[in-house]
Amino acid sequence: MMRAVVRNGLALTVKDVAEPVPGNGQVLLRTLACGICGSDLHALEHGGRRPDLAKRTGIPSTMDASRDIVFGHEFCGEILAFGPQTRQQLAIGTRVVALPIAFGAAGYETIGYSHNFPGGFGERMVATEDLLIPVPDHVTDEQAAMVEPFAVGLHAVNAADTADAGILVVGCGPVGLAVIAALKLKGHTRIAASDYSPARRRVAAQLGATLVLDPAVDDVASCWKAFDVPMRPAPHVPRQQSPVKPRRGIVFECVGVPGVIERLIAMSPVGGQIVVVGVCQEQDHFEPLVAILKQIELKFVLGYSHAEFEDTLSAIADERIDLRPVITGRIALSQVAEAFRKLTKPESDVKIVVCPAMLD
Amino acid sequence: MMRAVVRNGLALTVKDVAEPVPGNGQVLLRTLACGICGSDLHALEHGGRRPDLAKRTGIPSTMDASRDIVFGHEFCGEILAFGPQTRQQLAIGTRVVALPIAFGAAGYETIGYSHNFPGGFGERMVATEDLLIPVPDHVTDEQAAMVEPFAVGLHAVNAADTADAGILVVGCGPVGLAVIAALKLKGHTRIAASDYSPARRRVAAQLGATLVLDPAVDDVASCWKAFDVPMRPAPHVPRQQSPVKPRRGIVFECVGVPGVIERLIAMSPVGGQIVVVGVCQEQDHFEPLVAILKQIELKFVLGYSHAEFEDTLSAIADERIDLRPVITGRIALSQVAEAFRKLTKPESDVKIVVCPAMLD
Repeated sequence: MMRAVVRNGLALTVKDVAEPVPGNGQVLLRTLACGICGSDLHALEHGGRRPDLAKRTGIPSTMDASRDIVFGHEFCGEILAFGPQTRQQLAIGTRVVALPIAFGAAGYETIGYSHNFPGGFGERMVATEDLLIPVPDHVTDEQAAMVEPFAVGLHAVNAADTADAGILVVGCGPVGLAVIAALKLKGHTRIAASDYSPARRRVAAQLGATLVLDPAVDDVASCWKAFDVPMRPAPHVPRQQSPVKPRRGIVFECVGVPGVIERLIAMSPVGGQIVVVGVCQEQDHFEPLVAILKQIELKFVLGYSHAEFEDTLSAIADERIDLRPVITGRIALSQVAEAFRKLTKPESDVKIVVCPAMLD
Repeated sequence: MMRAVVRNGLALTVKDVAEPVPGNGQVLLRTLACGICGSDLHALEHGGRRPDLAKRTGIPSTMDASRDIVFGHEFCGEILAFGPQTRQQLAIGTRVVALPIAFGAAGYETIGYSHNFPGGFGERMVATEDLLIPVPDHVTDEQAAMVEPFAVGLHAVNAADTADAGILVVGCGPVGLAVIAALKLKGHTRIAASDYSPARRRVAAQLGATLVLDPAVDDVASCWKAFDVPMRPAPHVPRQQSPVKPRRGIVFECVGVPGVIERLIAMSPVGGQIVVVGVCQEQDHFEPLVAILKQIELKFVLGYSHAEFEDTLSAIADERIDLRPVITGRIALSQVAEAFRKLTKPESDVKIVVCPAMLD
């Protein structure tokens, strides 16, 4: 048995649960640190991704809201044991991070949203050997746990067409901050960030935003003028007169509530790209004609590649991503339920990291 | 004065109207042929693009539904005279096509949706000298008038990421057919086309569709299997094991009614691209989470570049686009009102071309 934070109905309770057992190609980890993600908050309240969506989209998910589950997919662990059919190229005791994907009897599943693969809010967990990445000694457990959420930002930025663009990040929660950090990592210097919270705007500036806007008082679209992005490029010109290409405007949607995408289309320059990173879980609406007349590109992104996970760890290890303003709490298993409550209305908190070995 | 088909309220009437006068950088054309576009049908009924949209999007439009207007933006004409400040490199009498854009006192406007620049359903019209392209002698007036609508298809295809993709064109009206023709032009051989009309499916196959589907009886998504496009590519693998990239699925939305985009997101493979060419003029709805889980790219396109206009004319001139099944009628000004009525419920008609010099 091991101690873990178990979701049961709407409650999170520390309980003894069955020890996870690594299957083929899997390793057993001692969980050292695991971040709390906004999706965990949503899954607590709504029971996680709906099974119908998993079927319709092919994205692994086998959550059953009526059964116990252990959340946590932003983890750093230490290798305790190898399952069958493993290559065992890393030594027992190696600290690792890993993409939270595992293959079991039900197919691919997301570790931390699965009844077969409990997540990082427990003392031990199983991960996929092929997806392990060793963590350099000087990187702390808590820093390593930030690889997953910051890889989300790097993936979103890699998916966008950001060369020479003027960039607006809407929403400076953990997702927006990860996008800002990735933009800075890639050398961008025209990064506007918008959020109602003064604390989050402050962190956005620390992570790399060069223009910080409060939508309650500022005109967020003023960033286009500041970045020399034309709202309406000149209409067609003959081939032989092709002018200098106007600078493109890119928006990262990191809010995830209905109506935001429509507002961002209205706010975008003609020819703009909107990268949707925020996860809106409800029906949404928009006016296609506006998107057509503005020739908008809406790109919906999710997750990251193995390479992006590795690159994010490197950037954290080199301090090219500065996590000091990001990790605002370090807690024991017994404090997880309270942390979930705090994070639903975050004030100064950004990321709270759970350390299962920490004493209560 | 000249004869023209004038929209007045919901009626189209042949009337004498003021002769257009070319301004700076403009030429006067004798209209030889002008196609009827689906947007003309919509503009007749709804008064054209709403002025609020023009303001919000920066797309030229100054239509006032209460004033007379002459439609027609798919035109071929003959140069009759040059306005002031023109370069006059083409001889009087040269047959030309042109992008339907003109600059006047109100800024840029779309010829044929403007009170200052009457369109091709009149004996004479004004065009922008810099946007003229001469028409080779062996290309008929009616064929030349098809450059504009087929350039729309080429632009949509150029905007997509079609290399090695499996492609589905949904809706085989003039827009869908133009997309199919452009795909064939670019050498694609995995082109599925879907339409309820047997006549349109037949033309789709003639223009280049390699798989023709009737959504009333066929499973449209079966095209992905036929084209070897995986619905759900394998999840993340380590960088060193990068597999062959799965073939991407691309959808061209050429219908333009609410609900279609949501259905196409549901039907797309993971990682698919949806190019929105159909013009939905109403509020629409969708589920962002499905688009996120499937990592869909929604690209809204409009118009064409000058280069795409030239390339389309070349392809028509070389018969790399076969217009024989496309041009289904050739009519005089007096028949335009009746043709608009026929086209709202097209049976065998695809494109009807208006020839203002044709006798009634």
